[in-house]
Formats: sequence, C-alpha cells, structure tokens
Amino acid sequence: MLKQAIYHRPKNNFAYAYDKETLHIMLQSKKGDLSSVRLIHGDPYDWSDGEWQFHTIDMKRSGSTSLYDYWMAEVKPPFRRLRYGFEVSDGTETFTYTERGFYEVTPYDTAFYFCFPFLNTIDVFQAPEWVKDTTWYQIFPERFGNSDPSTDPEGALPWGSEPPTPTNFFGGDFQGVIDHLDHLEELGVNGIYFTPIFKAYSNHKYDTIDYMEIDPQFGDKETFKKLIKACHERGIKVMLDAVFNHSGYYFLPFQDVLENEKDSSYRDWFHLWEFPIRTEPEPNYDVFAFVPSMPKLNTENPKVKDYLLHVAKYWIEEFDIDGWRLDVANEIDHAFWRDFRSVVKKTKPEAYILGEIWHDSMPWLQGDQFDAVMNYPFTNGAIEFFAKQSMSATEFADSITNVLHMYPANVNEVAFNLLDSHDTPRILTIADENKERVKLLYLFQLSFIGTPCIYYGDEIGMNGGQDPGCRACMIWDEDGQDRDLFEFVKQLLTFRKQIPAFGNGAGFRFLQSDDENGTIVYEKTNEEEQLIFIVNNSGLAQTIEIEYMGEAVELFTEESYHPEKSNSVQLPAYGFKVFHVK
Amino acid sequence: MLKQAIYHRPKNNFAYAYDKETLHIMLQSKKGDLSSVRLIHGDPYDWSDGEWQFHTIDMKRSGSTSLYDYWMAEVKPPFRRLRYGFEVSDGTETFTYTERGFYEVTPYDTAFYFCFPFLNTIDVFQAPEWVKDTTWYQIFPERFGNSDPSTDPEGALPWGSEPPTPTNFFGGDFQGVIDHLDHLEELGVNGIYFTPIFKAYSNHKYDTIDYMEIDPQFGDKETFKKLIKACHERGIKVMLDAVFNHSGYYFLPFQDVLENEKDSSYRDWFHLWEFPIRTEPEPNYDVFAFVPSMPKLNTENPKVKDYLLHVAKYWIEEFDIDGWRLDVANEIDHAFWRDFRSVVKKTKPEAYILGEIWHDSMPWLQGDQFDAVMNYPFTNGAIEFFAKQSMSATEFADSITNVLHMYPANVNEVAFNLLDSHDTPRILTIADENKERVKLLYLFQLSFIGTPCIYYGDEIGMNGGQDPGCRACMIWDEDGQDRDLFEFVKQLLTFRKQIPAFGNGAGFRFLQSDDENGTIVYEKTNEEEQLIFIVNNSGLAQTIEIEYMGEAVELFTEESYHPEKSNSVQLPAYGFKVFHVK
Repeated sequence: MLKQAIYHRPKNNFAYAYDKETLHIMLQSKKGDLSSVRLIHGDPYDWSDGEWQFHTIDMKRSGSTSLYDYWMAEVKPPFRRLRYGFEVSDGTETFTYTERGFYEVTPYDTAFYFCFPFLNTIDVFQAPEWVKDTTWYQIFPERFGNSDPSTDPEGALPWGSEPPTPTNFFGGDFQGVIDHLDHLEELGVNGIYFTPIFKAYSNHKYDTIDYMEIDPQFGDKETFKKLIKACHERGIKVMLDAVFNHSGYYFLPFQDVLENEKDSSYRDWFHLWEFPIRTEPEPNYDVFAFVPSMPKLNTENPKVKDYLLHVAKYWIEEFDIDGWRLDVANEIDHAFWRDFRSVVKKTKPEAYILGEIWHDSMPWLQGDQFDAVMNYPFTNGAIEFFAKQSMSATEFADSITNVLHMYPANVNEVAFNLLDSHDTPRILTIADENKERVKLLYLFQLSFIGTPCIYYGDEIGMNGGQDPGCRACMIWDEDGQDRDLFEFVKQLLTFRKQIPAFGNGAGFRFLQSDDENGTIVYEKTNEEEQLIFIVNNSGLAQTIEIEYMGEAVELFTEESYHPEKSNSVQLPAYGFKVFHVK
Repeated sequence: MLKQAIYHRPKNNFAYAYDKETLHIMLQSKKGDLSSVRLIHGDPYDWSDGEWQFHTIDMKRSGSTSLYDYWMAEVKPPFRRLRYGFEVSDGTETFTYTERGFYEVTPYDTAFYFCFPFLNTIDVFQAPEWVKDTTWYQIFPERFGNSDPSTDPEGALPWGSEPPTPTNFFGGDFQGVIDHLDHLEELGVNGIYFTPIFKAYSNHKYDTIDYMEIDPQFGDKETFKKLIKACHERGIKVMLDAVFNHSGYYFLPFQDVLENEKDSSYRDWFHLWEFPIRTEPEPNYDVFAFVPSMPKLNTENPKVKDYLLHVAKYWIEEFDIDGWRLDVANEIDHAFWRDFRSVVKKTKPEAYILGEIWHDSMPWLQGDQFDAVMNYPFTNGAIEFFAKQSMSATEFADSITNVLHMYPANVNEVAFNLLDSHDTPRILTIADENKERVKLLYLFQLSFIGTPCIYYGDEIGMNGGQDPGCRACMIWDEDGQDRDLFEFVKQLLTFRKQIPAFGNGAGFRFLQSDDENGTIVYEKTNEEEQLIFIVNNSGLAQTIEIEYMGEAVELFTEESYHPEKSNSVQLPAYGFKVFHVK
C-alpha cells in the first residue's frame, strides 16, 4: 500500500459541514491502490465498558485522476460531534489510518482519531439559495448599449465604428442596458455582473475617482435605480464590481496625499514608502501590479475600512443590488473581508459575495469570507481542451475532477464558472474562430455544477483578442449576430432550467475520456434522473462505445437509443449527444 | 519519482507569513525519494519580453519521518506578493510541480504557479512576544495551598488528610497561592495557569454558577487583585480558565429555563430540544459530553455572545489578567472565537489566548482565533516514549517531527507543551514511578521549542492517577518533597533562561534515533550556538557513536569532549548528556 499518497486533514475540502446536520468526509489515495475504504466514526463521548462505540460505513469513490482516487462518505452525527478514521485496504494489507498515522490494530481510544469537534450552524458555508439557479451575464457597461447620447463622454466614437483601444470611448450607458434587457431575458440569463460603474478615469473604470458616485457617462443614480428596478421586475439579479484593492490616481484622498505629502490627513490611507511621493520612474508606494495610477489602499487602516464598508453598505441599502464582485480580492487582507461579509450580510442576508481569485481559493471559501470565486481552475481546463485543443481528454478529465475535489460540494454548487471575461480574449478567438468548439464549451459549461457566466456578445459570436480587443461594442444588428449560436445557448439554458439534472441538481462524473479519438463521456445523475453526455472534441467523426447505457432519448433530436440494437454512438467532428436515460 | 506523495497547498503550515516580511514555503515528499528541491519564485507582475522573471533557491530538508521528507525555504518578496513552484528531482527525473500539477518543461506563465497573493501584516499570526520566554505552572486552586481557613467550604478536610475524590474539598485559596509564590519563583516559572476560579458548584469549578464572581472558597475580588499584584511584582503572568462551552447546572439562566421552561427569556441561551426539559435518563438539551449538569451554551445567540465577551473583557480590564485558557475550545463556533480575539486584543493587546484542543488545531491557529493550543500531539509522543516506554525511538522522532511540521514555525514557538494536567494521570504515575524517566521527560520538554507547562506538584515528585487521583493537595512539607527532582527542574529552567539555544531561540532537529538501544540524539542550533542532547531512554547502559560532534563541554558536569580522543559517549540507564559545542 502506498501510505505516502494517503492524505486527509480535517476542515477545508477533506472534512466539512455540507449543511447544519451533515458532514462530508473525503480521503485521497494513489489511483488504483486501495480496493476499499471504510469510515470508522462515532461520537467522542460515546463509551461503554471502557471502549469507544464506533460505527463503520463504506466510502464511495467519488472521482479519480491519473494520480489519485478520492473517497467520500456522508455522516449525520446525532450530537453534531465526530471522531473518525479510515480503514484502508488494498486487498492484501489493511490499516486503520488516523490522525497519528497508520495502525495494524484499530485503536480503541478516540484520542487517536481525526476530529470534527462540533457542527456549529453559524460556521457552515452557506451561499444565498438563489445563486444555484442563476446564470450570469457579464456586461462591460461602456460597450453594451448607448441609448442616451446626452451622457456620452467627450470624443465618444460612433457605436462600433472603430476597434476598441485602451483609451477610446463609445458612450455605453445604463439606458442602453435597460433597452436591451429583452435580449437577456430571451437568452435566459437571470443575473448581470457589471464591471465597475463608479466615477472613474478610464473606459474600464477600474481606477475609481469616487466610490459614492455613478460615472456620469452611464447616467445618474436615478437611471441606476431604474435599471435595478427593470432587472428585478424580470427576475434578473444585479452584481456590482467593488474595486477595493486600489483606488484610481484621481481619487480625492490620493490627490490630497500628492498635494500635501506627509501632512496629508490621508497619508495612512495608502502604503507610502517615503516622501516626496514620486510616480516615475517607479512609484515609491504600493500599487496594483506596477501601475502608478492604481495606488493600493491600506485596508488595515480602520478609517479606510470604515469608508469602504460604508460604500459596500450604501449601494445595497440605497439601490438594492444583489451582490458584490471583489476585484483583486486576494491581495486584500482576510480581516477586511471578514468584516465586509458581516456588514454585507447584515444589510442584505441574501446578497452574494464573489471574489476575483485566479488560483486555489480555499482560504477564502470557509464560510467567513466569500460565497464564491471566479473559478479559473475550471476555465483553464475547459479552454485548453475544447478551445485550444492543447490538452488530452484524460488531462481534461483530471483537471475537472481536481476542481470538483479541491473544494467542498456546497462551494462548487455556487462557483462562478466563466469561459472568458474582459480580462481574457473572447472564447471564439481562443477557439481559433471555430464555432463548433465554442458550442462544445457552452455545452460543458452550462451542464456543469456551479453558476455559469456568459460574457456579453459571446452568445452572438463576437470575437476579440486580449484586452482591449475583447471589449468591442456589442453588435445589435441581427445580421451581424450569429443567431444559430444564440439559439443554441438559449436551448442549453432552457434545459438547465427544465431538467434538474442538467444544472446544479445532480452529481457530475466522467465515464470515459479517450485520448486517441479526443472524446469524453460524462454523467449527471441524481436520484430521479440520469443524463449522459457524449462529446467528440476532435475534427474527425468518431464512434464511441457506450455499452453501459440503458434506453434513452437524445435531448436535442429526440432520437431514441436502444442498447439491444446498438452499443455505440456515431458523432461527426465536434459532435455531441445528450441522452436522458429512461 | 513518487508524484503522489508530493504535497503542497498554500496557507496553513505549507505556505505562511512568519513575520510581516517573510514567507515560509514547505513541501512534503516521500522519504528518500527526492535528491533536491528548488523553489521557483517571483513577483506575479514582474514580466519582461513576455516572460515571467522568476528566481530559484535551494530548499533545505527541515525534517524527515519514516514516511516523508519535508523541504523548506524562506523568501522575503520585495513587493509582498509571490507566485511559486517547485523544481523536484530524484536524480533521474526532474519536474516542475505547480498548482496545476507536474510539468517536464517549466511553465513560463504565473497562472500555473502556486499563489501567496499578498503578505498583509494584519493577517500574520502573532502571539504576544512574552509568551516565547514563558514557562507555565498549572495550579488547581482547590489543592495548591490553604492559608485562609475563613474561606474553607463546609466540610473541608484537613490539608492532604485524605485522597482526592470527585466531591471532597480541602479549602485551597488565593492566599495559599500568594504565600507560596516563593516556591514558583525559586523553581523559575514565570506564568500561572489557573483552572477555573469563578463561582461554581464542584471542587474543579468547571460547572460555573456565576462568571462575574470569584468562588468564595478562594477569597474575593480583593484577594484576587492582591494575587495578581503579587504575581506581577515577581514577573509572573496570570492566565485564567474560560469555560464558555457550557455553564453549570446552577447558572442562573439555566435555572430560569428549568423553572419557566419555554417562557423563560433565557430559552435561546441553550440548545433545548423540546419542553418540558428533562435531565433524566438522558438530558433533552445539548450538554458537554453527556453530562446533564453542564448544559451547552448557545454561543451563536448574540445575547450569550455579548455576555461572554463582557466576561472576557471584565477580568482583563478590572484585574489585569494576562491570558485566557479556553475550555473545550473546539466545540464552540469559529465566529465566536474571532470576535473573542478581537475583544480581548482590543482590551489588552499583549493578552495570550490558549485553546484547549487535543487534536490537530490548524483551523484555530491562523492568526484570527488563538495564539496557541494545548499541544497534546507533543504530549502523546513524549509520554509514549519516555514515560510508558511503549514507542520506539524512531516512532518518537516521527511523532515530534510531525508536530513540528504540522504547524507554522511561529505557532510552534508559543505552543503550550504539557506533560500532564488535571485531566490526565501525573507523569510520575504514567512513568511507572520511575523518576529517571520523568527527568528525561523534563529534559526533553524544557529544551523543546514552545512554551512548557509544569503541573503543580510534579516538580516535587507527586504522583496520582486519572482524575480525581491527579488532583491531590500540594505537599509543602519538604520531607515529603523530592528535592532532587525540584533542583533538576530548576537547573533546566536556568539553562532555558541563560542559554538562548536551549529554549525558543534555536531550531530543533533529530540527529539519531536508535530503536535497538532506545537512544536519541537531537540538536538545538542557531547562528551562534549548537547544543547536542544525547539521551538513553533504556534501562541498560548504552554507548552512542557521535562522530559528527566537535569539541564540546557538557552542561551539567562541565566535562570536556574531544573528538580526537573518542567518538562515542557512554550513558548509564536513563542517562543523558547535553553538550555545548564550541
């Protein structure tokens, strides 16, 4: 047995409260090494005749990668307390794996075992219920719709007349969003994530001038109220972008610091290294990346914290927004985010808190900070496999299985799964303009666990490279839109709403991944339903053996599948079938 | 290469801020598998010509167990941001290990790497500075000294006249502690941990009646003030026991609930399952373990929380206590402890917060909750090896190396390392009354990293079995005291104070562990000093080869060691030598 590959540590993804009465326990082992794992568990105080009264249950293999098997069990401890260990067997050897290591004889004393001390309700990770059923649509407001010419910034160009540059403006505004809500409703999304809308210098507005004001190019607070109302009437949630890591250069406190240097009453609002302050050749203060015009805010300063928490509260209280997306979230201190959560949830318990983190984000997803993060580990696998064709089917299955096992299940259910954003090239461009691959990406994204997000314009086949290329004006002329792609995404979103197993209502598992022909088969199942997705991610027609599938009907074509007639499915290049098994 | 045994995940013990400018990065691999590990690291935004500008440094092997090697490196990122990976080599194969897995070609893109996003000072784990230089002495106040007969509870027995039982009283009091502070000062301890002193029913006082009152058997608030003053004058810190998981049966709110049932205004102070409340045959409300007289407090109820936080603040503010030890700390919610820390540190920034947790405690030791926990994983190894002789030298070295690698270094430096307590048999009894083994235990405990604690009376050779046996009256008659043991402990504490490398001022490493003859050799080193501890934990004389040791002087005997004369050291049964290498 390969003991060194066996890993467990309580909390995080290995032992967590799924809800206020249920614990999930996970174990990692080397792929193929263990033939069975049993969970030994009991209440720590349940002793009789000097012996601990434990129980055992079989753990199920919840997924495998090329390196590891993952084992999982669910327990509802009657007194909310648990001590536990693992009886691991490879068919030849059997050990009891505990907090103190491996034992040939199962220890009788709870002191040896792993400990989940008490399932306190308040510590359970819990995102708002509505998030599980939400599909987001990301809008870069300068580029979505320009309905009100009176708010156009000076020098604004005619809509779509030129390619986007780092500095040009096209006058997108809130009225433009309101006027196009029909498009969103028809598509079937029910949440909008707006990149920043507060008064700022640039076209992307990530360099805030005033966190308490709407940027005048978008309208005013009245227009914003109207926008929120219009969204809510259509059942669409609204999430704003909180750029709290850094301010813009023209943020008044920073201007004050530049003017008054060490005498400024704002000198502790930033991380200034010395005086006089300089911006060239390198700034002598902390900034975002190495950008002098984005001075890092000192969120450890109680005054800065109070100010930003006031901002967080204000836009919820006054405008009834439904969530905050947190820019560069992981470079701000955990202490700030804990208080942020507390203020936000007190103001609106059903508000959603989404952090921008591109990496493993477990430390922020333990119930005390964020409800979700932008799930780039998901994005990476999907892009590499479907769009770039630079990853094998097995590597893809590994990466997705990893994503599902690196976080608790209740975290995965609300993960913000994006394919691209204002920070990346558009998927059609990444996919080498191959629309069939983009369809496979949408099929996978929209049938996966989590909360998907569509970047404005992708659904009508807009292309565009790395920023600023990906920030072109939305195309509203239907002749310029890929309506076939639009209808496809719309169909997927309909399935996601109508078939519980298609979306968050079912477990996900790979059934096959074939590196030779570039095909994958995955399953979504719950107690009532089984969906089987058969996907050909290659430029050649393929035949896939699926002898394990029962009688089924294909979702898109309604064709029937009878295992007694055939055990295989033919797919054209980049083809797919989704079977609803009877 | 055994990829499956290689483990790293940012935060916790694998990547953490040691101080406000230093990160420690750790990697686990299979013992003996890797010949070298290099840390690849850089600022995430430091790109040039489309390539990430990273640096590499060698990682050092910081320890090994039978299963694993641990690799460690220290980095001071100039902009407090870090992306990093590991170049792992077994001499044949070399891979770059990243957040996304293993690569033959080192990825050029930071997106692949592990992320420590920003070293925010406020998030750095930081216990009070004084704790590192503290040796604790645990006092069970009912049994330490009875100087004031006027406060004796009814039926109190003459001091030491009978063995302790779960219900008898001997009248120990605060004046008795004050009168014996000379003993503590002579021994050389500089912190007292008192088990509960608040008004309670039992002799152990873990069943609180009133958190705002001193138990009258110990004196009153004036006596307590006098005690604190007397301790502080001698440089002795005082830590109290906060029993916040549960109250006692006679706590007024619980009495109110028993009387008024569902109409009680305190009904949400507890976890009551139904009405009427019953205590027999089993309680129908949450309790500590299954003890009906210890109803669990509902710390999620803001009223209960406010009350307990008021208690926490009151005893610091009014009496200037130096720390809180938290009873059954891990069964209370994390949210409560975060607010507790905030209140305590606001009231007295230098206060110490110590949680009672018998298991792996990483989730409570991340800077937002506790400064330390009672380090039972340390206790277990020490007891099994030295006292019970039930663990081999290698198993012992494994267990101690595990303890050192399961937490960050700054956590280990303030870990509360105990050998026994009011909850376990006394060490002399565990050691089968063998004083020589007890001396080895003290030698090890008092030369180890962390904050050691001595249970009252152990230092003069008191014995006693599991509670109530371990709670006998302190012996004050010198004829009944083991003065030789006392002098030995005193000597060790003097070394700990006078020789920085003896205590927290040096790294710990095993040099040898020999299962055949039951000997261990370990080293404590810093940049200036090297101490080598040679310990014979067997009942037979042993000769130990130490060809690696330079010229040295033995600390206790002042004998010289010259490697050119001999490469070995002879030790009698349970003998030891501590060499100060020149």
